[in-house]
Amino acid sequence: MSTLGLDSMGMTQALRIAADVTPGKIATRQAGREQSWAQVQVNVKRLAGALKDLGVQTGDRVAILALNSDRYTEFQFAVWWAGAVVVPMNVRWSPTENAYSLNDSGAKVLFVDRTFSAMLPAIRPEVPTLEHIIYLDEPDAPDGLTSYDQLLENDPIEDANRTGEDLAGLYYTGGTTGFPKGVMLPHRALWYNSIVCVNCCGLETEHIYLHAAPMFHLADIAMSSGVNAVGAENIYMPMFNPAGTIDMIEKYQVTHALLVPTMLTMVLQDPSFEPSRLSSLQFITYGGSAMPEGTMRAALEQLPNVKFAQGYGQTELAPFATVLPASQHDLSSPRLMSAGRAVPGSEIRIVNEDLNDVTPGDVGEIMVKSPGVMHGYWNQPEQTAATLKDGWVLTGDGGYRDADGFIFVVDRMKDMIVTGGENVFSAEVENAISTHPAVAEVAVIGIPSYKWGEAVHAVIVPRAGQKATEDDIIEHCRPQIANYKLPRSVSFREETLPLSGAGKILKRELRKPYWDGAKRQVN
Amino acid sequence: MSTLGLDSMGMTQALRIAADVTPGKIATRQAGREQSWAQVQVNVKRLAGALKDLGVQTGDRVAILALNSDRYTEFQFAVWWAGAVVVPMNVRWSPTENAYSLNDSGAKVLFVDRTFSAMLPAIRPEVPTLEHIIYLDEPDAPDGLTSYDQLLENDPIEDANRTGEDLAGLYYTGGTTGFPKGVMLPHRALWYNSIVCVNCCGLETEHIYLHAAPMFHLADIAMSSGVNAVGAENIYMPMFNPAGTIDMIEKYQVTHALLVPTMLTMVLQDPSFEPSRLSSLQFITYGGSAMPEGTMRAALEQLPNVKFAQGYGQTELAPFATVLPASQHDLSSPRLMSAGRAVPGSEIRIVNEDLNDVTPGDVGEIMVKSPGVMHGYWNQPEQTAATLKDGWVLTGDGGYRDADGFIFVVDRMKDMIVTGGENVFSAEVENAISTHPAVAEVAVIGIPSYKWGEAVHAVIVPRAGQKATEDDIIEHCRPQIANYKLPRSVSFREETLPLSGAGKILKRELRKPYWDGAKRQVN
Repeated sequence: MSTLGLDSMGMTQALRIAADVTPGKIATRQAGREQSWAQVQVNVKRLAGALKDLGVQTGDRVAILALNSDRYTEFQFAVWWAGAVVVPMNVRWSPTENAYSLNDSGAKVLFVDRTFSAMLPAIRPEVPTLEHIIYLDEPDAPDGLTSYDQLLENDPIEDANRTGEDLAGLYYTGGTTGFPKGVMLPHRALWYNSIVCVNCCGLETEHIYLHAAPMFHLADIAMSSGVNAVGAENIYMPMFNPAGTIDMIEKYQVTHALLVPTMLTMVLQDPSFEPSRLSSLQFITYGGSAMPEGTMRAALEQLPNVKFAQGYGQTELAPFATVLPASQHDLSSPRLMSAGRAVPGSEIRIVNEDLNDVTPGDVGEIMVKSPGVMHGYWNQPEQTAATLKDGWVLTGDGGYRDADGFIFVVDRMKDMIVTGGENVFSAEVENAISTHPAVAEVAVIGIPSYKWGEAVHAVIVPRAGQKATEDDIIEHCRPQIANYKLPRSVSFREETLPLSGAGKILKRELRKPYWDGAKRQVN
Repeated sequence: MSTLGLDSMGMTQALRIAADVTPGKIATRQAGREQSWAQVQVNVKRLAGALKDLGVQTGDRVAILALNSDRYTEFQFAVWWAGAVVVPMNVRWSPTENAYSLNDSGAKVLFVDRTFSAMLPAIRPEVPTLEHIIYLDEPDAPDGLTSYDQLLENDPIEDANRTGEDLAGLYYTGGTTGFPKGVMLPHRALWYNSIVCVNCCGLETEHIYLHAAPMFHLADIAMSSGVNAVGAENIYMPMFNPAGTIDMIEKYQVTHALLVPTMLTMVLQDPSFEPSRLSSLQFITYGGSAMPEGTMRAALEQLPNVKFAQGYGQTELAPFATVLPASQHDLSSPRLMSAGRAVPGSEIRIVNEDLNDVTPGDVGEIMVKSPGVMHGYWNQPEQTAATLKDGWVLTGDGGYRDADGFIFVVDRMKDMIVTGGENVFSAEVENAISTHPAVAEVAVIGIPSYKWGEAVHAVIVPRAGQKATEDDIIEHCRPQIANYKLPRSVSFREETLPLSGAGKILKRELRKPYWDGAKRQVN
């Protein structure tokens, strides 16, 4: 660790500064509990001390499976303060997926809230290496769990001051092999993205940010890192719902939020929506896909004082590669369907299969090099080698760049569906379906959905003489994979699936009837 | 050099990206010469090749003494591209000061323009180590100088790709000992400040930036680094004058400019000023001091669509430590007299003489730690040790922080005058005056000036029986120091100068009669 330089930047710096400069200012506010930056820092110092006492060493992984809360923020800072590595679990995972990621990460300690403590009986026996489970909610923890409140009585410790290339977190993302992969992000990757977010959203100390998107996701992690870097205020919504979002924005005079297009569509269409209730709102960041034109038009018309910015990226980039700034949100401009331009410090290439640059304007795979680039996938050297090329991340997204530098994402190289802002790898769903006895062949594709952008659809060829209904297939998958990965619809066909010369399923042909005439909203 | 990480960021990245992504976009425009980013990159590659052929090695210093121009931008990129170190000379220096800094830096090569070639006969004989002088203007260089145009015919070379802690430049600043000191800034310090400027001024590719402030100064260097980081357009004004600024903003539809308060005051008071002529202007960054209230009021009233941001810092920080953002430019707010808040990534402490934090709200010396911090002063280990404390820069400015985190600069610890945005160390002026035969004692102080913020004033005790006029003193100094350092006024007194117990001149007492009743605008 150098004491000077950019690589001396780490994720605890924001907390130290905010607690030092504006100790009395509200940092977090949730369900009647208000905490100043000084209080958050005291909690973090004590929690970090408790983690040390529980045996957590520098570089150890500490996981969390919880809905959004002020304690999620404290958890992150405390793990970093103790010199350890955060492992946020996707709240939509099945017990099987949770157990897989806990085992894969080798986490010794898991933080869990009331909602997910119910899932522990299905998880714990599968994860023998788990030494401690911390219960985030009521002071009295259920049997076998350690009380978070009790840890707050521990002696405080000094900041481990992890920075630069020190590992900050493992962030699990869907895998092409059907299993989630732990993306290793160092402190500098998260710190760089905090600055990107301050910049892209014009964040200032007076702003109030609503955690509406899930906090395990890199989009919220980056946004809240920007929020914390300027000592602004965090408001928490345990889980997104449109009426609750409107209520909280109005009640807490929220200025900034991150809403994927599906969430914004739901807010605008909610019966309780009135533009005047959102009058405090200044800025909405969105990502996961371009905004459907109808939603964008409605949003710009009904919320004329709100600025919009789109971010494009992926977990492997912590996450931002491009931003379409507020100034480009002009309904008459074709740029509104782009992902914007590379953020300063990020270089983007559009390459062919040999990783050579394509002719400007042509479609190729989007490749990114930036201070946000991951170290690789945890314990997956082969997948790392396939994605990380000489410091560049191969995004798996197809796209082109126009003459003004705007990136248009037009296709995905990876067989992946983006639905309601979540990435679903087809292989994960295909694996689950394929174990049904009536299934001979299966292909999972994304089909257009106004609400979700894309919806997961399964095309199945039944075994001779066997039968299954759509419901049969969905219920078969339910215990295996997260709810958002479940097929929303299933079609059955007699003829075998179309194959390429190399024997790969030609998904393009399967998608064609659904997408012809539909404007594909990908990026 | 690491291939990943924040410390892989360097100053040539912006040029590589702009030339790759928007090759045909105008990069620089001056006096009828328009150059695209692709053309600038070609020139830079060839110039860098020429520097190598002239014997410039990695880490060698290459100086420039020139007014603002597109070639100044090319010079900077070319020196970095060749792996060398830029040494921008203050255009207001006397030949003696120029020779001193050239010798001190050990520059082998000097770039000079038409204006300053006239000064060469007085400089060159004093700098025996200077091997080559490149003439920036007409194709035919005067005798003994090398033609810039000819160097552009050289073979191009690849980027040396200097980054992180590699030295990018020596930036000379006034010295308390009376001699300028070379501030050593690495690539990461300049890169960090480029991101700070993109953020603070909301810079985007479509913007057009006017170089109105001198390009040797860190304020313009940081701003233009931000401009280049987003591939925006540079417009050059050789030297500031108010009518010319108005003309250029109107003619080139300039959107962004950096103007110190003195410059903005002159623009607003110029007979040719009409608000409509500045209708393209979106953003003015200022620094060097808070804006006098009259100027701020006039600017906000007459240019209601322009946003203002103040930056505070110093060369040792490359240069920004704090920003007062556009949102805080409210005439009714006392914050308008502050320097704003620390920029993200910068930590600020207010300390006493033992470098312990003072009670919040109390005045102490402002100390800054950030990715912008210098390596130290070139060949000045003692002065470096006095300024750089465990990675923190002691700014020499006195100030306090309010409960909301705003920094108010209230005094200077260093004996320095800020006049028209330039720093003048009293010792430099005192040294010059003291060699006059009629001077027994001298003290130089800053006194209030509406136009310059502070004006340089000399208090002199004549030798018994000797006499000198104000004009005598000023003319005696003229060949020794830059014009802006000359005393604007001189007062003579019979009694000896007031001394502290330790024998130091009590400048506070000398300043008192001038400042009582005047609002001191320092920071």
